[in-house]
Amino acid sequence: MIILFTDFGPGGPYLGQIRAVLHREAPGLAVIDLVSDSPPFDPAAGAYLLAALMPQLAEDAVILAVVDPGVGGPRAPVMVRADKRWLVGPDNGLMAIAARYCATAQWWDITWRSERTSATFHGRDLFAPVAARLARGAAPPGTLRRDGRHAGRDWPRDRPAVIYIDPYGNAMTGLRSAAMAEGRPVVAAGRTVPQARTFADVPPGQAIWYENSIGLVEIAVNRGRADRDLGLAIGTPVEIAAADDEAS
Amino acid sequence: MIILFTDFGPGGPYLGQIRAVLHREAPGLAVIDLVSDSPPFDPAAGAYLLAALMPQLAEDAVILAVVDPGVGGPRAPVMVRADKRWLVGPDNGLMAIAARYCATAQWWDITWRSERTSATFHGRDLFAPVAARLARGAAPPGTLRRDGRHAGRDWPRDRPAVIYIDPYGNAMTGLRSAAMAEGRPVVAAGRTVPQARTFADVPPGQAIWYENSIGLVEIAVNRGRADRDLGLAIGTPVEIAAADDEAS
Amino acid sequence: MIILFTDFGPGGPYLGQIRAVLHREAPGLAVIDLVSDSPPFDPAAGAYLLAALMPQLAEDAVILAVVDPGVGGPRAPVMVRADKRWLVGPDNGLMAIAARYCATAQWWDITWRSERTSATFHGRDLFAPVAARLARGAAPPGTLRRDGRHAGRDWPRDRPAVIYIDPYGNAMTGLRSAAMAEGRPVVAAGRTVPQARTFADVPPGQAIWYENSIGLVEIAVNRGRADRDLGLAIGTPVEIAAADDEAS
Repeated sequence: MIILFTDFGPGGPYLGQIRAVLHREAPGLAVIDLVSDSPPFDPAAGAYLLAALMPQLAEDAVILAVVDPGVGGPRAPVMVRADKRWLVGPDNGLMAIAARYCATAQWWDITWRSERTSATFHGRDLFAPVAARLARGAAPPGTLRRDGRHAGRDWPRDRPAVIYIDPYGNAMTGLRSAAMAEGRPVVAAGRTVPQARTFADVPPGQAIWYENSIGLVEIAVNRGRADRDLGLAIGTPVEIAAADDEAS
Repeated sequence: MIILFTDFGPGGPYLGQIRAVLHREAPGLAVIDLVSDSPPFDPAAGAYLLAALMPQLAEDAVILAVVDPGVGGPRAPVMVRADKRWLVGPDNGLMAIAARYCATAQWWDITWRSERTSATFHGRDLFAPVAARLARGAAPPGTLRRDGRHAGRDWPRDRPAVIYIDPYGNAMTGLRSAAMAEGRPVVAAGRTVPQARTFADVPPGQAIWYENSIGLVEIAVNRGRADRDLGLAIGTPVEIAAADDEAS
Repeated sequence: MIILFTDFGPGGPYLGQIRAVLHREAPGLAVIDLVSDSPPFDPAAGAYLLAALMPQLAEDAVILAVVDPGVGGPRAPVMVRADKRWLVGPDNGLMAIAARYCATAQWWDITWRSERTSATFHGRDLFAPVAARLARGAAPPGTLRRDGRHAGRDWPRDRPAVIYIDPYGNAMTGLRSAAMAEGRPVVAAGRTVPQARTFADVPPGQAIWYENSIGLVEIAVNRGRADRDLGLAIGTPVEIAAADDEAS
């Protein structure tokens, strides 16, 4: 199975071209479009979203992860053997947090190149063909990085900021609920936001945070839009409230 | 075949996670994404859109219908045996009009629960696994409601309001054309809008209504956007014009 | 394989209904959604995007191409045998440039009609069933146009205008890079924009054009949005700079 995690948007020509390549290179294989609206130009935000989604992906999945503002520049194309899964994409941090979740993670440089690789669409010309090969069980077309160096290796395990706005205006953060904030309010855009189990537990219009379905701190306004109502955007800092904030 | 009718949006992580569950629980089965932009938070609007789409769906389809602002609250998870189809989703009215279309409709409480059901994503944790079971031909994991009570049972058969704005800005209403308005103008946002067969029949810029391809009254502006040009939004009332309006 | 090129939007009910028809009429056949956000109401813009995508599509693909603002009016439904591919859609110019790319292109009138064809959704009622037949290898349900006349036959081979805005705000034009502008600046919205190999070659905030991954002149702002930053929209004229512009 090949799983797509990208910022290509669901309707445009990029995802369609990738699907056409995968169909040609690995016909009959299941391809699942997991996320196509990861924040554009922002591998760091995507890294924490991808990591939170990893535990539920099939154990032998090949994950094509492409948020690649530096395409055509010096960043390297890589493959990561993360337990029994493969991650394929640019070495810009996007896969760093997901790899860190795993018991074992080996980083490989992709050395294969197609006859004609465009300067701006490595997703189609490089990453998709490599993902198809790996999904067919072929040997990884590259070389193991003995030192394991990669972009994002110094990023923190949690990211105290908004990483994704969903279609309802709910704001996911890069904070894991269990590890970081259970029972504590969070502070975002100057507001102290208490925890609740779900939006259905509070009156319409009230802001809360809860542990979302992938284990992250998520801020919502019941039947409202947290992004608009609270002024949240990708990158807005979200902090755990200090003890005296809880009393206020 | 499993058909998805949701407000999850086409690009985000919700639909992707549901597809991953369906692939795991019912591998090889066709999954068709019928609607992923039903108006959010609004099961009533979605109910009339789903009902209008029902007649063309395969007779043995399992329809996963999720517009679920009350997820995690007291609303029950249900299955409906509607002729030979199954509908699976929240008991909040979303499936009520579609079920009423059918010769027979039996309402079942879903009693099965997964080991870990999140508070905010029953689509993934509850409805998708149940839909996969039903699509595989397994017995319904629940109990029949002898009295057939369900949310939305007192909703009218037609809804005199805008229920959906399409990508062109056309406004679908919950009024069935044949039953309600054939040959009569409609009134929306203070404007009296005459009927035409299609937008191609009137000059660019003119507002009309026509019977759309799923039998509903739809308001459009030829080569314009009815939502913006006429000030229409989800929920805007749309009435059949009185006889004297026709003369004006 | 059936490939979809439309302006239906990725989330709404139109694409879903077409997929349901294709699944019924050609079960098991691969269906790839190549583009679902071609500029609405604008067959001319879509024509140049489709043409640029053609070379990479499978040689025996059936392409369902629907951008159809005149649906229900006098424009004819057509099939084009373009080398070994079929194109199916409205005769409004949308397929004209793609057909001109090919060594051979035969234009056919579709004479088949379904029992009930709606006035506003020929994609579902006419083009999808015909595409399914052709993909199954059936004879074309229509008649060959001996004179080969079709809409768009007098359109130029390149279109000096913005034809598509991608999710990052990059503006594709209908100009082929190799044929038209290699090494020359372009002028758009009063700005002279120099060529670069890729956005990674210039500082953030700088506007450039480059040959995009489908061979077209594309205008971008590194880590910015060219549509917003430069004031570009579908139809904005884009000209090759005169020789003295290059010196400025």
